[in-house]
Amino acid sequence: MSRGNLLYAQSGGVTAVINATACAVIQACRRKKIGVFAARNGILGALREELFDLAGLDAASIAALRHTPGGAFGSCRFKLKSLEADRAHYERLIAVLRAHDIRYFLYNGGNDSADTSLKITQIAQALGYPLNVIGVPKTVDNDLPVTDSCPGFGSVAKYTAVSVLEASLDVASMHESSTKVFVMEVMGRHAGWIAAAAGLAGKRADEPPQVILFPEVPFDEAAFLAKVRATVERVGWCTVVVSEGLKNADGKFLAEAGTTDAFGHTQLGGVGPMIAQLVKSKLGYKYHWAVPDYLQRSARHIASKVDAEQAYAVGKAAVEYALAGRSGVMPVIRRTSSTPFKWKLEAAPLTAIANVEKKLPRNFINTDGFGITPAARRYFEPLIRGEDAPPYDQISGLPMYAKFKPKLAKKKLPAYALADK
Amino acid sequence: MSRGNLLYAQSGGVTAVINATACAVIQACRRKKIGVFAARNGILGALREELFDLAGLDAASIAALRHTPGGAFGSCRFKLKSLEADRAHYERLIAVLRAHDIRYFLYNGGNDSADTSLKITQIAQALGYPLNVIGVPKTVDNDLPVTDSCPGFGSVAKYTAVSVLEASLDVASMHESSTKVFVMEVMGRHAGWIAAAAGLAGKRADEPPQVILFPEVPFDEAAFLAKVRATVERVGWCTVVVSEGLKNADGKFLAEAGTTDAFGHTQLGGVGPMIAQLVKSKLGYKYHWAVPDYLQRSARHIASKVDAEQAYAVGKAAVEYALAGRSGVMPVIRRTSSTPFKWKLEAAPLTAIANVEKKLPRNFINTDGFGITPAARRYFEPLIRGEDAPPYDQISGLPMYAKFKPKLAKKKLPAYALADK
Repeated sequence: MSRGNLLYAQSGGVTAVINATACAVIQACRRKKIGVFAARNGILGALREELFDLAGLDAASIAALRHTPGGAFGSCRFKLKSLEADRAHYERLIAVLRAHDIRYFLYNGGNDSADTSLKITQIAQALGYPLNVIGVPKTVDNDLPVTDSCPGFGSVAKYTAVSVLEASLDVASMHESSTKVFVMEVMGRHAGWIAAAAGLAGKRADEPPQVILFPEVPFDEAAFLAKVRATVERVGWCTVVVSEGLKNADGKFLAEAGTTDAFGHTQLGGVGPMIAQLVKSKLGYKYHWAVPDYLQRSARHIASKVDAEQAYAVGKAAVEYALAGRSGVMPVIRRTSSTPFKWKLEAAPLTAIANVEKKLPRNFINTDGFGITPAARRYFEPLIRGEDAPPYDQISGLPMYAKFKPKLAKKKLPAYALADK
Repeated sequence: MSRGNLLYAQSGGVTAVINATACAVIQACRRKKIGVFAARNGILGALREELFDLAGLDAASIAALRHTPGGAFGSCRFKLKSLEADRAHYERLIAVLRAHDIRYFLYNGGNDSADTSLKITQIAQALGYPLNVIGVPKTVDNDLPVTDSCPGFGSVAKYTAVSVLEASLDVASMHESSTKVFVMEVMGRHAGWIAAAAGLAGKRADEPPQVILFPEVPFDEAAFLAKVRATVERVGWCTVVVSEGLKNADGKFLAEAGTTDAFGHTQLGGVGPMIAQLVKSKLGYKYHWAVPDYLQRSARHIASKVDAEQAYAVGKAAVEYALAGRSGVMPVIRRTSSTPFKWKLEAAPLTAIANVEKKLPRNFINTDGFGITPAARRYFEPLIRGEDAPPYDQISGLPMYAKFKPKLAKKKLPAYALADK
C-alpha cells in the first residue's frame, strides 16, 4: 500500500527564513522516502491543481533554499471562508489531494493559515479522506499564540535593531549642522513586536532608539513632542521608531490609506514621513525618515541564526508529526530557559492557535510608553542572536540565492475556475 | 625640532566606511610617531578649537573604527566660502593649527571638502604657515572626478543591489494575489550612481530591477507606465528603483520638498511613494514602496570588502603623502584592470577635483533609459565584491561597533563665535 505523498504550501506574507522551513520539509521527506509536492502560490495553486513536483530537484538547489529569502514556490493572500460558505473550495481541495495521493498537508503561515488548516482537517474527516494536516508557524508579526516566537520574526527583529543602530550612528555624526531627528517606520499592523525589537539597538540611557511609538499606546502628540524635544536638547539628536499600526486616541490608524487587502486588512504606510513632518512643523528640527518596508522581512543577509534554526526545525518536525500520524497540530517553540537560551519543539493543537492573536505584553512597554522594559529585552535578545550569512558569489558580490524552476505535476482533474465558486 | 602634529576632520554626509579611513589615519600616525587630533564635528570643531586628542585612545578602540559606520568624531555640513568672504574663518583656522603645532591637515570629504582643502592650502601659504593639506576622498554619491570610485560608494552599492534582490524575491512570491509593483527610492541627488548600481541585482532579461529611473533621464510618464505594464504582464510583477534626484522634462525634481540645506541643496524625499501612487492610479496595480534613506549609507553590516579596503588605503596614503611633504593633493584610486580587478593609489592635485562633479557616463544607461549596460556592469561589479562583516556580540546579537568618548585637547586660544564673523 502506498504511504502517500506530502503537499507543502506557503501562505501570507513571506519572510527571510520561510524557505528554510521548505528546505527542511523537502529534505525530511526525501530521507523518509515520501513524495513531496509544493503548491504554486499557496492554497491558490492547491485549488487549481498547480503542484510543483519536487522529485526532480537537485540536492544543491534544495539546500540553497535554506538561505534564500522570499517564498520559493509562491505564497498568496487568499483566505478560505467557513466550511459552509466555501464548501466547493474545500471539496475541490480534497479532490486535488486525493488525485495526487496526498495524505499529508503542511500549511506554512500565520493565524489565518492555522484556521484554514483546522478547517481542512475537519472537511477531510467529514469526507472520510485520510489526511494528516500540520500547521507550520511563520510570521514576521510574531503574533501566533502558544509558540514562544514565530519563525521569521527573529530575523526582522535583527534587521531592525541593526538598522536602527547603524542609522543612529550616522545621525549622531551629523546632528550639529544637519539631521536632528531620524524616524524609521517598521511593520506590525496590530501589535508592536517589531517596534519593540528595535529597542534592542540601545541598552543604556539615551542610546537609540530614544522613542518608540507602539500600536498599543494611543499616540499622544504633546507627550511625543516633549520627549523628542527633551532628547534633542540633552543628546543632540533623537531616533524615533514608529510602528505602521500607530493609532490615535480614537483607535484610528494615523496613516489610514483607505485601501484594504484580500482579508479586509487596511493597507498601511506613510506614518513614518507623517511623524517626521510633525516634528519639523512643531519643533523645527531637520529630519530624515526611512521606510524599509519589504527590505525588513526579506533581509536574509542579516538573518538571525536562532531564527533560521527554528524555521528549519519546525519544518522538520512538521514532517515527523505528519508521518507519525498526527493531525490538526502545529510544531511550536517552547522556551525552557532564557539564560542560557534553550528551546524545544512541541505539538500544539490548531484549535488553540487559529484566529488567536498574541499581543505584545503590557509589561514589555515602559512606564512613559516610549521604550521597552528589561522583561522585553530578556524575551527578545535571544531571538536575534547569532549570524547565518548566506554564501556570496565572489564575482558578482551578491548572495547566492536559490534559482530554480520546479516542474508542475501533470494535472489529473478538470480545470477549476476559482472566481466562479 | 618638533615634527608637528596631524589633524584629521570628517566632512559632509558620512558613510559605512569613513571610519575605516579614520582608523588608517590614526594607525599610520602612531606608527610614524606623529601626534594625531580629530576635529569634533568636522571643520566646525577645528574653528572652535574643539580637537579630540587621540593620544590616549586604546588600540582596540582604534581598530574597532575600521568596522564602525557613521563618523566617529562627528561631521558637518558647513562650507567655507571664498578666501575673501570668509577670511576671518580661514585665519582662525590657521591660528588653531598653529596653537596645536599642527603641520598636517587631512580633510575627509567630497567635492566641497576638496575645495575647502585647496583654499586652506592657499591661505597657509599666504600666511607663511608651513602646512601640508591632503584631501581624502569619501562620498556615497561617487561623484568625485579623477578617482575610479569614492570610498563609501561601494558599500551603498552593495547594500542597494542586495536589498533589491531580496525584496524582489519577496514580491515574486506574493505577486499573484498581492503586491505587483515594488518601488525603492535610493539616494543620489544629481547623479544616478546608486540607482545604476541597483542594476547589479539582476543580470538576465526580466530579472529585477526591471525599471530604473535615473536623474540623468527626464521622467517620461507614458514610457514609464508602458514599461511597468509590459513587465507586469510578462513577468507577473515589477521592481522599480527610483533615484531621489529624478527630474521632469523641465529639469525640476519630481519630489521637490521646498527646503534647502546649508549648501543650498534642495532637501529631497518622497519620490518613491509618489511613483508608487502613480502606478496605482494609472495602472491599478497593488504596490509597496521602500525608502531606506540613511540605512543605505550606514549599513556597515553589508559593506563591500573592496570598499572597506579602499577606504582604509586612502587614509593610510594620506598620512604618507603628508609626511612626505606633499600638499594640495588627494589620494585617488586608479583602476588598472577590471578583470581581474586591480587598483592602486595615486596623488591627484586638488585643483583637478575641487567643485568638479563626475556624472554617470551616458553609455552606462541602456537605450530605453530604464536599465544599465554591460559597460556599467563592468565598472560597478568589482566595487561590491567581497564581504567584510563586523564582529558581532554573541549575547546581544548586534555588531560590536566602536564606542568611545575621546578627550578634547585643552584650548589655547580665546573662544571663537562662528556666527559673529
